[in-house]
Amino acid sequence: MTEAELLGDVPIRPGSGADAPPGCGPLAPPSPRNPKPLRQSVFEHVRAQGRAARADIARALSVSAASVTALTAELIALGLLREVGGAPLEGREAGRGRPPVALEIVPEGRHVAGIKLAEERHSAALADFGGRILADAIRPTAPGRRSLAEAVDEVAALVAALRERAPHAPPQAVGIGLSGLVDHATGEVAWSPLLEGSALPFRAACEDRLGLPVHIDNDAHVLTLAELWFGAGRAISDFAVVTIEHGVGMGLVLDGRLFRGTRGMGLELGHTKVALDGALCRCGRRGCLEAYLADYALVREASTALGRSLRAPQTPQAVLETLYAEAKRGHEAARAIFARAGRYLALGLSNVVQVFDPALVILSGERMRYDFLYAEEVMAEMRALALPSGREPARVEVHAWGDLVWAQGAVALALGAVTDETLGRAP
Amino acid sequence: MTEAELLGDVPIRPGSGADAPPGCGPLAPPSPRNPKPLRQSVFEHVRAQGRAARADIARALSVSAASVTALTAELIALGLLREVGGAPLEGREAGRGRPPVALEIVPEGRHVAGIKLAEERHSAALADFGGRILADAIRPTAPGRRSLAEAVDEVAALVAALRERAPHAPPQAVGIGLSGLVDHATGEVAWSPLLEGSALPFRAACEDRLGLPVHIDNDAHVLTLAELWFGAGRAISDFAVVTIEHGVGMGLVLDGRLFRGTRGMGLELGHTKVALDGALCRCGRRGCLEAYLADYALVREASTALGRSLRAPQTPQAVLETLYAEAKRGHEAARAIFARAGRYLALGLSNVVQVFDPALVILSGERMRYDFLYAEEVMAEMRALALPSGREPARVEVHAWGDLVWAQGAVALALGAVTDETLGRAP
Repeated sequence: MTEAELLGDVPIRPGSGADAPPGCGPLAPPSPRNPKPLRQSVFEHVRAQGRAARADIARALSVSAASVTALTAELIALGLLREVGGAPLEGREAGRGRPPVALEIVPEGRHVAGIKLAEERHSAALADFGGRILADAIRPTAPGRRSLAEAVDEVAALVAALRERAPHAPPQAVGIGLSGLVDHATGEVAWSPLLEGSALPFRAACEDRLGLPVHIDNDAHVLTLAELWFGAGRAISDFAVVTIEHGVGMGLVLDGRLFRGTRGMGLELGHTKVALDGALCRCGRRGCLEAYLADYALVREASTALGRSLRAPQTPQAVLETLYAEAKRGHEAARAIFARAGRYLALGLSNVVQVFDPALVILSGERMRYDFLYAEEVMAEMRALALPSGREPARVEVHAWGDLVWAQGAVALALGAVTDETLGRAP
Repeated sequence: MTEAELLGDVPIRPGSGADAPPGCGPLAPPSPRNPKPLRQSVFEHVRAQGRAARADIARALSVSAASVTALTAELIALGLLREVGGAPLEGREAGRGRPPVALEIVPEGRHVAGIKLAEERHSAALADFGGRILADAIRPTAPGRRSLAEAVDEVAALVAALRERAPHAPPQAVGIGLSGLVDHATGEVAWSPLLEGSALPFRAACEDRLGLPVHIDNDAHVLTLAELWFGAGRAISDFAVVTIEHGVGMGLVLDGRLFRGTRGMGLELGHTKVALDGALCRCGRRGCLEAYLADYALVREASTALGRSLRAPQTPQAVLETLYAEAKRGHEAARAIFARAGRYLALGLSNVVQVFDPALVILSGERMRYDFLYAEEVMAEMRALALPSGREPARVEVHAWGDLVWAQGAVALALGAVTDETLGRAP
């Protein structure tokens, strides 16, 4: 009998597995160094796959068939998983040749909202427990910084729009991603280009206003969660995400988990220094990678390059579009601006490869449509800058997702918290 | 009864703990995402502490008293731990007010050698299973690269010297640290400044010669293991180690474990780029941090600064000593060389803080005695370069250990492997 047949057909009784260990030793509680219990890994694997047979779960997590049988039984009893794709388990006669019963998340009953706050437009999505998007909302925003109270108003308006579009599915938690130094653990925003002031109690203010649990994180982190839950993470457990938008952000997945830095404030790739006493960054320091690569870095050189073309005041976005169009037409100075940005991108990526040694680097963000940034010369320079390790160089993929993928990452942030809470509370 | 009294006095019977869970669910095997079983964490905690009472272990690992009682009983039965500091457990009468029984590693019966290969001298140490050094050997070496066969000869000579000094304690495994791109998993050296050629099967060659299991790693990694096992790791579970010797190396401990990069080749801080088209590095690329900071970077500017003082050819080390003496005497150009190196060190450290957000950065290596490198201005510049997070800045400590600490790290590498093998094989 194959393992798949075994898993598809055996009745589910916790502890009945043939390879359960003999005796009855005490089951150790998870130590702080092993924070993810196996039951949660099983649940998350099913969510990542959409549907999964028990044999596939056992293979993917290197867990015994008996353990998967027991753990999925617990998750079914808790109302978190259900069987699909076969006859109901109870009372079913054993038969050969049937497709194995698959498991899926029970999507109803728990819903979350995900919000990404950004410079040009905010986006929001409402999802069920399986991560399926039920409604979304995108709102243009005024440029510049806003007060904490104004930002909370914007969050509340987005949640209200989602409620209106899906009145049957009120969210039980809200995830929010925004750029800046965002402390996921404490819910404080130390600094953000979107907000006035510093050390802002952003999560608490949103919770007060919404009457719901709120979880906040850096926007590059929520985009990385989107990849971990719904994208690259389905295939590999270690990868880096580099985002280029108004700034340069980064997220890192190690061993299937988002790495947030020891104190929750790490991975500020955009503010690593690539020159001593270099170009001025909007953070106030000099030589940050971002100061050579972000849109404001290109825009401030554009007036030099395009002097005569820029007659009337323009928005930075319009200047960038003009610069890009000129570069494509062969304007030398415009091309030189993008070429240098591309070389600094190569330098930044080679540094990511040098310190983290990821198997895959995903380039993401709106700016990815400026294809100079991932032109073959940029990739070649990145590979040339990294030390030769005798292995295949790190793979680089460009993911030019739309706005909603950020909101989907914020959904994953909230879903993760609701899952932890549900599984942590359950016996 | 306090927890300490409870743990000190209850007889050890696996599964007898009052808070063992009811029922007898199957004990899941460790998944690949939770690679360190709790029994191993208990064992390593005792080794790190030297001696530890069961109550202290329970507190440190956030594990129930009953679990610690059961796990330590297994480790005692395997002959790996023993009790000290109280009457023997069996047949002892319960009494109040006695000091709780502590546990320690059984040091005899298993011994390992640790070797650090370096540019000026190799060092080696022989240790028992508790990590205590029983013998050591330091050998001056010829400068420059050597063939694989010559390096294996040097390793064999060091092991022979240790055997001679401690004939009662033959090593069962050997750990070796050396600079370069060293793949711990495959045992290959992709590139090393000590060795001729590339993609060298260094581990296999040493195993063939010695007839013993050999484990190899980057030298900064073995120094980090020394800190993890015998130094800073006793107090905290997340820290970075930056080494400045002939090159610039780095090790990172995340969650109590050495991070080796996704493919075992990460953390090449010395070859992160801090300038586009910058100074030439010995790796052949331009702009590496190391090219501004390592001894060869200072020496090549020394002839410009000290032109008339350098009459006869000198070793790089002698040039560096002269340069340092001149700088201390107030020689402007000599000071300028060290001052720039210090600023680049600040830049490199701020990048480490920016991407990893460690609670502690340890600066280590021979060069730490040039105190300009950790002068207050360097630390101030490092703090000024990092984004303000609203928290205490990362703590920086300087550990100017001697040669043997590297060998001790190689001992830890071998001890870890022997421990894994022993605990993995045991029922």
